[in-house]
Amino acid sequence: MADDMQLLTSLVPYLGEPHPDLRQRVLDLLTTESFLIPVEIDRAEHRRRVRMAVEVLAAEGLGRLAFPRAYGGEDAPERAIAVFETLAFGDTSILVKFGVQFGLWGGSVLQLGTEKHHHRWLREIGTLELPGCYAMTEIGHGSNVRELETTATWDDETDGFVLDTPHEGAGKEWIGNAALDGRMATVFAQLSVRGEAHGVHALVVPIRDEDGAPLPGVRIEDNGPKVGLNGVDNGRIWFDRVRVPREHLLDRFATVTEGGRYESTIESSGRRFFTMLGTLVAGRISIAAASVSAAKVGLTIGVRYSDRRRQFGPEDGVEVPVLDYASHQRRLLPRVAATYAYHFAVRKLVGRYAEVLRARRAGGEGTEEGLREVEARAAVLKALASWHAADAIQEAREAMGGRGYHAANRLGRLRADTDVFSTFEGANPVLLQLVAKSLLTQFREEMGDLHFMDALRYVAERAGTTVRERNPVATRRTDRDHLRDPEYHRAAFRYREERLLESAARRLKGFIDDGVEPFEAFNRCQDHLETLAVAHGERLALEAFLEGVVEAPSGDASDMLADLARLFALERMQEDRAWFLEAGYVEPVKSRAIRAEVGVLCRALRPVALTLVDGWGIPDAVLDAPDALGCVVMTTRPAPAPPRPAS
Amino acid sequence: MADDMQLLTSLVPYLGEPHPDLRQRVLDLLTTESFLIPVEIDRAEHRRRVRMAVEVLAAEGLGRLAFPRAYGGEDAPERAIAVFETLAFGDTSILVKFGVQFGLWGGSVLQLGTEKHHHRWLREIGTLELPGCYAMTEIGHGSNVRELETTATWDDETDGFVLDTPHEGAGKEWIGNAALDGRMATVFAQLSVRGEAHGVHALVVPIRDEDGAPLPGVRIEDNGPKVGLNGVDNGRIWFDRVRVPREHLLDRFATVTEGGRYESTIESSGRRFFTMLGTLVAGRISIAAASVSAAKVGLTIGVRYSDRRRQFGPEDGVEVPVLDYASHQRRLLPRVAATYAYHFAVRKLVGRYAEVLRARRAGGEGTEEGLREVEARAAVLKALASWHAADAIQEAREAMGGRGYHAANRLGRLRADTDVFSTFEGANPVLLQLVAKSLLTQFREEMGDLHFMDALRYVAERAGTTVRERNPVATRRTDRDHLRDPEYHRAAFRYREERLLESAARRLKGFIDDGVEPFEAFNRCQDHLETLAVAHGERLALEAFLEGVVEAPSGDASDMLADLARLFALERMQEDRAWFLEAGYVEPVKSRAIRAEVGVLCRALRPVALTLVDGWGIPDAVLDAPDALGCVVMTTRPAPAPPRPAS
Repeated sequence: MADDMQLLTSLVPYLGEPHPDLRQRVLDLLTTESFLIPVEIDRAEHRRRVRMAVEVLAAEGLGRLAFPRAYGGEDAPERAIAVFETLAFGDTSILVKFGVQFGLWGGSVLQLGTEKHHHRWLREIGTLELPGCYAMTEIGHGSNVRELETTATWDDETDGFVLDTPHEGAGKEWIGNAALDGRMATVFAQLSVRGEAHGVHALVVPIRDEDGAPLPGVRIEDNGPKVGLNGVDNGRIWFDRVRVPREHLLDRFATVTEGGRYESTIESSGRRFFTMLGTLVAGRISIAAASVSAAKVGLTIGVRYSDRRRQFGPEDGVEVPVLDYASHQRRLLPRVAATYAYHFAVRKLVGRYAEVLRARRAGGEGTEEGLREVEARAAVLKALASWHAADAIQEAREAMGGRGYHAANRLGRLRADTDVFSTFEGANPVLLQLVAKSLLTQFREEMGDLHFMDALRYVAERAGTTVRERNPVATRRTDRDHLRDPEYHRAAFRYREERLLESAARRLKGFIDDGVEPFEAFNRCQDHLETLAVAHGERLALEAFLEGVVEAPSGDASDMLADLARLFALERMQEDRAWFLEAGYVEPVKSRAIRAEVGVLCRALRPVALTLVDGWGIPDAVLDAPDALGCVVMTTRPAPAPPRPAS
Repeated sequence: MADDMQLLTSLVPYLGEPHPDLRQRVLDLLTTESFLIPVEIDRAEHRRRVRMAVEVLAAEGLGRLAFPRAYGGEDAPERAIAVFETLAFGDTSILVKFGVQFGLWGGSVLQLGTEKHHHRWLREIGTLELPGCYAMTEIGHGSNVRELETTATWDDETDGFVLDTPHEGAGKEWIGNAALDGRMATVFAQLSVRGEAHGVHALVVPIRDEDGAPLPGVRIEDNGPKVGLNGVDNGRIWFDRVRVPREHLLDRFATVTEGGRYESTIESSGRRFFTMLGTLVAGRISIAAASVSAAKVGLTIGVRYSDRRRQFGPEDGVEVPVLDYASHQRRLLPRVAATYAYHFAVRKLVGRYAEVLRARRAGGEGTEEGLREVEARAAVLKALASWHAADAIQEAREAMGGRGYHAANRLGRLRADTDVFSTFEGANPVLLQLVAKSLLTQFREEMGDLHFMDALRYVAERAGTTVRERNPVATRRTDRDHLRDPEYHRAAFRYREERLLESAARRLKGFIDDGVEPFEAFNRCQDHLETLAVAHGERLALEAFLEGVVEAPSGDASDMLADLARLFALERMQEDRAWFLEAGYVEPVKSRAIRAEVGVLCRALRPVALTLVDGWGIPDAVLDAPDALGCVVMTTRPAPAPPRPAS
């Protein structure tokens, strides 16, 4: 027990790095009145409460950390992400409204705009004096953003642009802050200048006057009740000949000169589009980080309860804590392990992102490649972490039986709120296809098909030479030393990814050589590409986890985390053992041994289950789930008195 | 198109059998004002609306179909289940409140009581003049019902029983109808007569007076907000020396005579307990049926939308309906197939249940075995169907992207409401363990360990003799005729189940021979046992599906369903291909061929996807999801005008 306390004492600060000061400030706020949203609340009141909480965050200066110092910020996007990650322990509507205002609205002005835009708007965005929107998604176009239909047409007469929604289905949809609070919006629209189309660009468009009434030509509709996140005022926006001056074009990558000439430093419209989107990568990183936090909340509640709740037991004996059951351990502990893996993976990604930004600011070389890499990692980790969160919260709910169904225990709203994480900031299936394509083209420079085909040919040709060889002895080795060896896990994850990459390339090339249209060739390989992207993401997660083990603050912590990393690796391998069997990478005898080892690791880690979830450092008052704190489980059988929280 | 209409015209009545009249009556009611619950509604109002809807159902005589004719019923439990199954297309709170009143409260009086109880209460239960509860679950004991702690103590003086809740944690919890409406309750309590404990028995206990105030000694608390089903008034109940007369003991299986003598026709208290629970099997069957209905609602909405929603496409071409994408097909169509499988499996189970009840009424032989079989099937199908519903609804939500997140499209509430289906009427993991044990003991007569060990020995000994042999040629056959052969699927599913059964028995026996305590031996095999139970349930589902194909109303319908059954079988096999590979039942080349065939079947079935979901016959007005009916998806690319519903 003393050991557990020591472990915990070293674990919490380790997992709270970097920016522990900032995290603590947010945790302190989360336990204040403004941040505790009642379980039952109507939509209008929920929105009002959420708005108030975001005002507190703005007043604390926590919304503008990514902004330049000149506008009250710290020029530190990675600190902004740490705030977002910590906010995700609390009400998710507050989190998302915060993200809309400072990350999406502020972030788009910061990243897509230039000095004049920053100067004009950033300060007021940071203080929430100027609430705004990020108006990208349309009713008819969600995933396929490049085909959105709102138009921004250059008008010589007025030296500005005219915004139009060509038809009802091209209305902006799901726009956070639109239904109530937003006064301006970054609007993504098809830009045309003197009859020439230049693709999607972003413009700042006022949508409401000081009194909150929609401006002429702007029609706004409330998006109405949602599955979750009902504290966020999403809405739809249509434009009818709405004029904005020339300087409202966010012109970091392309501008229109006074005389009405379109100029861009990036020639290809495809590349320009993806460069623009790429600057907004912080959003995806933030959702990945928030997903990990949501999984932590769910699993902390589920594990704490399962550690205490007793049910059934040997004849005439004491009833057993449900977490002592093998199947219960299998449901929860590998998910705890995966949460650690994504924790370290996201942390590493944030570090890399900050590094790339610093290099860019210093005018460094290779920042383009660096950004591409960050984009690909953000995409795959956002997809895997958001699905993981949904799955972990659901498993926690079921592990708690009926108690998980009490709204007071938070899992319902948490699940409903975070459900859309798999959809917004890029639908997960679409992201995985993008990641696979990016792997295939090895950080390609262009989206053009020609380049892509070259890359494909290259990957297909090198197949069989670079992939590490299967070791005929290793496919049958079942001794524990081998099964638990992190180098074995690393090699297995790499092997899987490389094999999937080469086989995908070969299949695609085969289809195309047979005259199948590229679009259809990709369609036929979608499953394969998705599998590849997942294998890639899991490899990143494992490697980050193993680094996290090495850097652990003490030998005990390191040993415990090493076992947890083993559990992550072996459980993933056993989940995907069909692939390893088909590839001949493991023989059936080994596959069975891996499964057995997962059970052994679960049993071995069960005594530190509480330490593992408490290591995430979510204070009781933030956790705010009665059944994760107290204990109502009493029996007539002679059971030891259950532990109670100190009063 | 004409063919599709013909198919649909034959499919809808086929899937609506038996009792189409009754189903139609319920469907008609579901479109009336009383049954359409607004998307946004507070808890009190939701409860009021739900109560009103249940009153309508009672007035229509739909609650008492399982009751004897003498009390207004039809003596037809299978017709009661058809009503429940159809109600599940609408608001789930109405469904559950209906189930509490007539199935649980009425069902317990009917099944556990005798003539005098029926005479006294059934008529008023059926008309809802006497709302009541089914008070089994306690705060401290959910799954482990046998250890519940409420006591019913015989009192000579008053010729009756005294009900007591020994401590706070023994309060009844989650009791439907308790928070507001219930006037009486079937209370499960540990019966003791003159110092002798007789285990759990059920008694009818008045809990509220005519004015709705709790009676003396009865304390009731509202269970508060839940993740879903907020239209149902669940509550907690504690008893403090509450007296009921002797004849309030529901005494079908055990009675206490006037002089205070305990008598039962069933000697073993374990067997008595399970016999009592067994009579309540209709509840589990009903939840399995309702789960299938919920999956139908979710998938109909998801598939209809995906059939129309266009996104991305070949360069400069028309955008493609998302259901044309291979990965989208893989997400939805196998789930449609599984829904058909569980549809037929549940239908068959209901038929068998009705048959057994008829046989019992006629005093027929073998009804004990029949009931045991029905219980085991109900348990496994309840578990698999409820998990399937959660998974299918979630997949539909994600397949619809942001549109699935609109509360108006119903998937959120449907998911939250049905989420608890995996927990109530027996937590799924617990049910699967029970099913596996029942398979191991071959419809054992007793729960006693001795008998069980005998069965274990028997199964372990016959291992290797009865399991059909692997065919060394078949493990590599990859030709389409073979892969699509239903006899192959049937053999594979049976092989898997038998192998899992024998290996589980061998493992258990091994542990026990090594001196491991039975409780711990079972704990170590939990995963194995769960896998066995799932294999059993999937085998039942496949066989029922194949029968459903044979009995299809036309050659075209039969062909289509045959392909769908192939998809179900092969998709399950590919999901579990690791097992088949490990067992040597398929070689890697065959495993890959199965996966490919799943894709081929998805493509082949995509054109009839709408027909398949519309075959479930959910009227638009009941479906009540705007995006499954209309169409808001417009693009500037030259796409054909999307179909619109006839006005």
